[in-house]
Formats: sequence, structure tokens, C-alpha cells
Amino acid sequence: MTTLTSLVNHQVRLAARPVGMPGPECWSHTTEAVQEPAEGGVLVKTHAISLDPAMRGWMNDVKSYIPPVGIGEVMRAGGVGTVIASKNPQFAVGDAVSVGTGVQEYMLVPQDQIRKTGLVKIDLSMGNMTQWLNVLGMPGMTGYFGLMDVGQPKAGETLVVSGAAGAVGQTVGQVAKIKGCRVVGIAGGKAKCDWVVNELGFDACIDYKAGNVKAGLKEHCPQGVDIYFDNVGGDILDDVLARINRKARIIICGAISQYNNTTPVQGPKNYLSLLVNRARMEGIVVFDYADRYHLAVAEMAGYLKDGRMKSREDVVNGLNTFPETLGKLFSGANFGKLVLKVAD
Amino acid sequence: MTTLTSLVNHQVRLAARPVGMPGPECWSHTTEAVQEPAEGGVLVKTHAISLDPAMRGWMNDVKSYIPPVGIGEVMRAGGVGTVIASKNPQFAVGDAVSVGTGVQEYMLVPQDQIRKTGLVKIDLSMGNMTQWLNVLGMPGMTGYFGLMDVGQPKAGETLVVSGAAGAVGQTVGQVAKIKGCRVVGIAGGKAKCDWVVNELGFDACIDYKAGNVKAGLKEHCPQGVDIYFDNVGGDILDDVLARINRKARIIICGAISQYNNTTPVQGPKNYLSLLVNRARMEGIVVFDYADRYHLAVAEMAGYLKDGRMKSREDVVNGLNTFPETLGKLFSGANFGKLVLKVAD
Repeated sequence: MTTLTSLVNHQVRLAARPVGMPGPECWSHTTEAVQEPAEGGVLVKTHAISLDPAMRGWMNDVKSYIPPVGIGEVMRAGGVGTVIASKNPQFAVGDAVSVGTGVQEYMLVPQDQIRKTGLVKIDLSMGNMTQWLNVLGMPGMTGYFGLMDVGQPKAGETLVVSGAAGAVGQTVGQVAKIKGCRVVGIAGGKAKCDWVVNELGFDACIDYKAGNVKAGLKEHCPQGVDIYFDNVGGDILDDVLARINRKARIIICGAISQYNNTTPVQGPKNYLSLLVNRARMEGIVVFDYADRYHLAVAEMAGYLKDGRMKSREDVVNGLNTFPETLGKLFSGANFGKLVLKVAD
Repeated sequence: MTTLTSLVNHQVRLAARPVGMPGPECWSHTTEAVQEPAEGGVLVKTHAISLDPAMRGWMNDVKSYIPPVGIGEVMRAGGVGTVIASKNPQFAVGDAVSVGTGVQEYMLVPQDQIRKTGLVKIDLSMGNMTQWLNVLGMPGMTGYFGLMDVGQPKAGETLVVSGAAGAVGQTVGQVAKIKGCRVVGIAGGKAKCDWVVNELGFDACIDYKAGNVKAGLKEHCPQGVDIYFDNVGGDILDDVLARINRKARIIICGAISQYNNTTPVQGPKNYLSLLVNRARMEGIVVFDYADRYHLAVAEMAGYLKDGRMKSREDVVNGLNTFPETLGKLFSGANFGKLVLKVAD
């Protein structure tokens, strides 16, 4: 057995708060010696880290649904990995786990931090490691509960989802198809649009980079829009608001088009469509559904197994690439759920 | 008995669609001979007409919850009056009624238009004529059902209502007080603020014309805002969004600050507060609750009788003053529900 204390933990820490798009000055790369877990604790070797739009929000010093990452702290991130040392009878060496690893190679979880870090065993027969960061992980849970609890889809309704090829979008669209909805995605570029239609079975996908979202919505949502799952905000939100049906539900999951603004967020100027249509716009934070994650995981693992659901991850190698890799999210350069692979 | 056909009906018709604030060029004043009702029909003499912010929307040639008023048509309006001729056994001469009179002195309702015009008898022992345009009329129904069905107030919660001294606002605030909420109004000017606090029993009222709404919300909503009933939109909506609590409900009833814009509507740039707070913004149109109006009327008439509820109407005399009187709504010059009295 390798002596644990001979291992070096490479980390990425938040060095400065960004103004607009986070640049290299926001990050510092540090190393630390790995520590043995104390009684009740667990040491996890990170296999892969989830890169999510929400991380941009955690970098701002504002009141939100969780405190911001402090300057000098290891950047917050969800991850998957393997237990390499355990003094806790619930976890054995070799167990695959999901945990808020942060952007680092090793995560020491003291007993009193197990709950807070979300350390749980994952079953690789239900999905592979990167799927546990995607449809079976936080983005999947976000998509599933946002769709089911806030969206309340009914068979025959039309659902539109932006960021359709992303982690949340692919979950939302596929689950909505399974529930009997007409599903129209919005994504950037022909390759993503082709993929969600041809591989995931969406009814249509509008390429916002090719131009007219409004015309695309008119063409592909002839019966109007009953549910809009919004990951992007901005003009696209306004375009959809102009097409909603009576009693429509709009799930506000994120607004990636606005996260790097140095000007105020663009408010939806068509929000009075909510009034005319007696419609609803509601925010969702995934953590509220933690006690039901296992139900959604079981359901979606079943769909993965029987082939009704697919997943796609965009895996980039190397902890050191974190700053540039994160940037792919905001330019839309990732194709599928963006994952940073840290170790085999 | 006066010969009906000797009576002259003065009318105000929509002559042109406004750009921005409606000016005199938008209106034409016409006269017509009064007609005898045919079999099943009813002739109503208008006593008073309700002037409401929603009328501004009906003047625009856009798709909305009801068709726009056509050029050359009598301007749409709700009213109260007295039956002066009837060939319908449901209505007797002398009955007090509420009906979509339009802006005119007499309203002939053929049998097949009774439902469409909303012709119903009103009980003046429950409230006087102008109260039937206010808390017992459309604004009262809007406030009551928006608050109860969308707002879902719970005792101890904090409710904020804009346009607090207006027809909808006075209903919302008083009903919310009766339901056990802390109630904070927003209104323009000291007189209105004093009135809603001293006469209606609101806990506080913020004078938006005196300045800092944000600071006022902080002072008067120390526990945050659970329900916001929005009649105004604009900056005030953003200020409230910055103070909402988790699971807050925002009722979008109107946006009077935006109705005369010649630029696009100002979207709420703080809408992502819905996400952070898992909150909801939902539109309401009063007509959806028509089959339950009688329940709300009975409840609120009881409050008027036992003194728990008061009402205030700003009554202006003379059909011919309609164009200028309507303008009072948009400058906030009215104090209480704005009513145009047409005849004694």
C-alpha cells in the first residue's frame, strides 16, 4: 500500500473575484500533503469534477442560495471518485462515491462533514462515473425535479428547453419526451441540434447561433409553449414568453447568457405575457429535493438501462486545465455535460 | 313615463390608437337615439363608470386576454346603473345592475348579450353604487382572487402591495390584514400613505414619490416579503424582488408604470431572485374567477358591514370629462378607486 502521506494533492483555489468572464488571475494552483482520515473520516481520490454554470455565481460575493466561495478557498465543485482510505464503517476502500470534492485531486471528509459535502456511495451498475455527474448527478436532479415538480408536464403539452445539449437540457428533454410531451430544444450550432433530435429524440431543435429563435419557435411550436425550462435567460427568454400558452409554466433554472455581464442582468421585457396568459415563472434550486434524489436516480437509471435515455459528457483531461475548461461553458464550446477528468 | 326614444345617448368612442399617453385625439364624442329593448332585452341608464388602468391595454391593437376595442367603437368600460326598460322577466324597471356599459349614458342589452356584457343585479344593501365598482366590483374581485388564489396568504406573512390606495390595492391590503398578514403598502404621496395606514389599518406605507422605496422596504419588511401584489411594475418590482423570501409569491396584476411607454416594457432585472428564493411570479386575469365572484362579494360585503373593511372612491362628474379623467390614473392623481359619474 502506498503511504497516503506521500501523496500530493493538487488544488485550484479562488484567488480573486471575477469582473465579467473569469480570467486566469482568478485562480491559484496549490499543493498540499494528503492527510490520513481521522476516526469516522474518509479519504476520496477524485476521478472527475463537474463543471457547471452555477459555479460562476458561487464566485460572486453576493447573498445567494449558498455562501460564495471565499478568496483562497479550494473552488467548490461536485465530483466523483473512489474511497482510498476509510475510518468509517459506512465506506470501504474501493467504494465509488459522489462528493463535493472541490477542484482538487483528493478530498478528506471528516465524519462531521459527510452530510455537508454530500458524500454518498454510487452504484456504477446504474451509470458510469461521468453519468453520475450528469443525468444521475446534480444536473440530472435539477432537470428532473424542475421539470416534474415545477413544470408538471402533461402528455401532449409542448415543452421548450434552452441549453438543450447541456447536462440539464438533455435530462429535461428526454424525461419530457418519456412523459409524452412534444419537446423542442434550443442549442448553439448544428451539431448539437442534430444530436438532440437524432440521438435523443427531441421533436425539433432551434439553433440560436444560426439566427431567428422567434421564427423557430413559431415553426416548431404550432400549439404554443406550455412549459419552458430556462437555462439561459436574455433574449431567448423573451422570445419564448411571446409564445406561451395560457397557464404555462416557466422554470427558471439559470441564465447563463447573463452570468458574465458587467452590466445589470437583462430583465424579461415580455414578462407581462405572464399576466395575459395567467402563467407562472418559478425558480428552482436542486438542493431542496435532496431527500428525493434516490427516486429520480432510480427512475432515470432505468431509462438509461432500457435505452430510452442517453447521455453525453464532454470530458476534458487535467486539473490544470480547469480555468480554460470552465470558460467553454460560457462560450457554449462544450458539447454535452462538461466534465474535468482528474485521474483514471 | 318618458318616451324612451326621446332620450339621447351621449357616448365616447375610440377614435385613434394612442402612442404613449392617450391624448384628446384618441376620442370622439357621439350621440345616438336610445332604442327600446326587443323581446328579452334590457335598457340600462348608466349611473357611474369604472375607470381602470386595464383600459389602456384595451386601446392597443395587440393580442391579449380580450380583443382590443375597435376604432369607432364605444370605449369598453364596466358600469353600474338602473334598469329603465325591460322585456326580460329576470330584470325589472328600477333594478340596480352592474354591466359592461361602455363609456355612454345608456346601454341596451339584447337578450343574447346579457352574459357577454356581464349584466347582473346588484344588491345596494351590500354596498352602494360606487362600491359595486370598487371592492365589490372588478377591482375588488381582482384583488381578492389574486391575493387568495395566487398569493395564498398565511397569517404572520408579510405582504406588500403597490398602488395601495387604488381600487385593487385597498382591497388586497385590507383582506390581507383580515387574513393575519403584516401589510405594507406602496403609494404616491403622503395623503394616500396616511390614509391606508390610518384609515385602512395597513402596518406601513412607503411613499414612492418621496424617494427611496428600497430603504422603505428594508425598514418596514424586517422579515422580508412573502407576497407581493404588483400593480405597477418598473423599478418598484425590482426593489421588491431584492427583498423576497424563500417561496415568495408575486402576483402580476398590472404594470401601470409601463402602460404608456413608447419604449419596450422594462423587464425586472432582478428576476433571478426567483431562482435564488425558489419563488414564483404569476399573472392573474379576473374573468377566470367569474363563477366565484358571488362568494367574494358576500365575504367582502360582510367586512364592509362590520367595519373591518372600508372603501374610497374618487368620483368625477360628467361623461364629457372622460379623456382627462382617465389621465388621472396614469399620473396617480386619483385618490381611491376612480369613478366617472354619469347621472344621479
